[in-house]
Amino acid sequence: MISKTKARLIKSLQVRKYRQEEQCFLVQGAKAVGETLSSSYDILLVAGTDTFLGQAEGALKGKQAEVIQATEEELAAVGSLESNNGAIAVVRMKPKSAPKAPVQGFCLVLDDIRDPGNLGTIIRTADWYGIKNIVASQETTDFYNPKVINATMGSFLRINFSYVSLTEFLSQSKAPVYGAFLKGENVHDIKFPQDGLIVIGNESRGISPEVEKWVKFPITIPRFGQAESLNASTATAIILDNLRRSS
Amino acid sequence: MISKTKARLIKSLQVRKYRQEEQCFLVQGAKAVGETLSSSYDILLVAGTDTFLGQAEGALKGKQAEVIQATEEELAAVGSLESNNGAIAVVRMKPKSAPKAPVQGFCLVLDDIRDPGNLGTIIRTADWYGIKNIVASQETTDFYNPKVINATMGSFLRINFSYVSLTEFLSQSKAPVYGAFLKGENVHDIKFPQDGLIVIGNESRGISPEVEKWVKFPITIPRFGQAESLNASTATAIILDNLRRSS
Repeated sequence: MISKTKARLIKSLQVRKYRQEEQCFLVQGAKAVGETLSSSYDILLVAGTDTFLGQAEGALKGKQAEVIQATEEELAAVGSLESNNGAIAVVRMKPKSAPKAPVQGFCLVLDDIRDPGNLGTIIRTADWYGIKNIVASQETTDFYNPKVINATMGSFLRINFSYVSLTEFLSQSKAPVYGAFLKGENVHDIKFPQDGLIVIGNESRGISPEVEKWVKFPITIPRFGQAESLNASTATAIILDNLRRSS
Repeated sequence: MISKTKARLIKSLQVRKYRQEEQCFLVQGAKAVGETLSSSYDILLVAGTDTFLGQAEGALKGKQAEVIQATEEELAAVGSLESNNGAIAVVRMKPKSAPKAPVQGFCLVLDDIRDPGNLGTIIRTADWYGIKNIVASQETTDFYNPKVINATMGSFLRINFSYVSLTEFLSQSKAPVYGAFLKGENVHDIKFPQDGLIVIGNESRGISPEVEKWVKFPITIPRFGQAESLNASTATAIILDNLRRSS
């Protein structure tokens, strides 16, 4: 059973202020918690159903984590998932550091992505396309927001993600800088090099003027219909697909 | 000012049951409401800020819609948007009919898409790529859910969307049927024909066995990293981008 104190702790980690105080975040769902148990992340607490704890027995051995047996209803009540409530873990944040220039391969640069679902989906898609590094502006939504972690579907474990001053980062990088704009070179025609940076702009304002200055290669996804723009995570996915087929 | 009765009506339309009773749905945000005013949809009520109503004066002329002047705070209180609260409209649903076979061009077939954000993003992306028709299984989330309408960013106005029995629809169609699977032909290598159907499966279970029987051409988005799968709306976007560059 999840005690009132633990329930309060878990619920509090939905809120950024408490995540920062505790330096902890939530991982939810049997699959994601299972994957986190096999990662190098430090886990403080695992609450899981009988079924989950049975399956995770091996992975839990030798871990310091406090283990709590709970029902799906209890897990649903303290967590934020609508379904898939087999387990919740309280996990310690890791120090993050930006990749040092020169970056090997391609790195995504997020200029103020605000929607947690978009950020999580971008991380998941980057992991699908073998992108190892993502840097984000300080205004980009919190990586440890449960909605972000959930939307990554476990990919948060594999991506090196850091918050930086974008103009400083870009000024120090020697790799070619691509950026998604509504007017640029057709992404279908671009031959991408081996290394580079791809800037993705904010959901409503796009790439900010300070960051735009550093973009040498504006690229555009060609439009065949009438929508005015694409969702930021959609645009990222299409660019990464084109990157991988061209190189 | 928005009266208590009107506030209750607007709030009730967040819920499917009341949308079906009233045969009405919500459009939120100045831009989307403005676009709806220029469409063939029948609008019953527009609540907007002074600024919005000033800009929309021409479009409102000759319309039967009740017009209410409101503050952003009032609009935020009755609506579901976190920002962009310039206007809310109560709009009458339109009867929907499935495209008749043979379908001209490509049509998306949604097999049980449950997340409203995904459905809205798929509609927006389809509109970007010039797809006119989408058919969806009866279990697919409600087109008129405010989260769907918001995520379409106005594209709900331009897509012919209908709920059908997928097996019946597919059995009557003569166009080639493509479907997104984890094992299929590499989408980068496919030469798409002029007309066809593309089936997108459920977020967690993929394409159902009954529908899979009708898929002649299983296609796959090649993976370069470690994520196990892509988000359904992301996969749709990548397939549509490949469709348009190959034809």
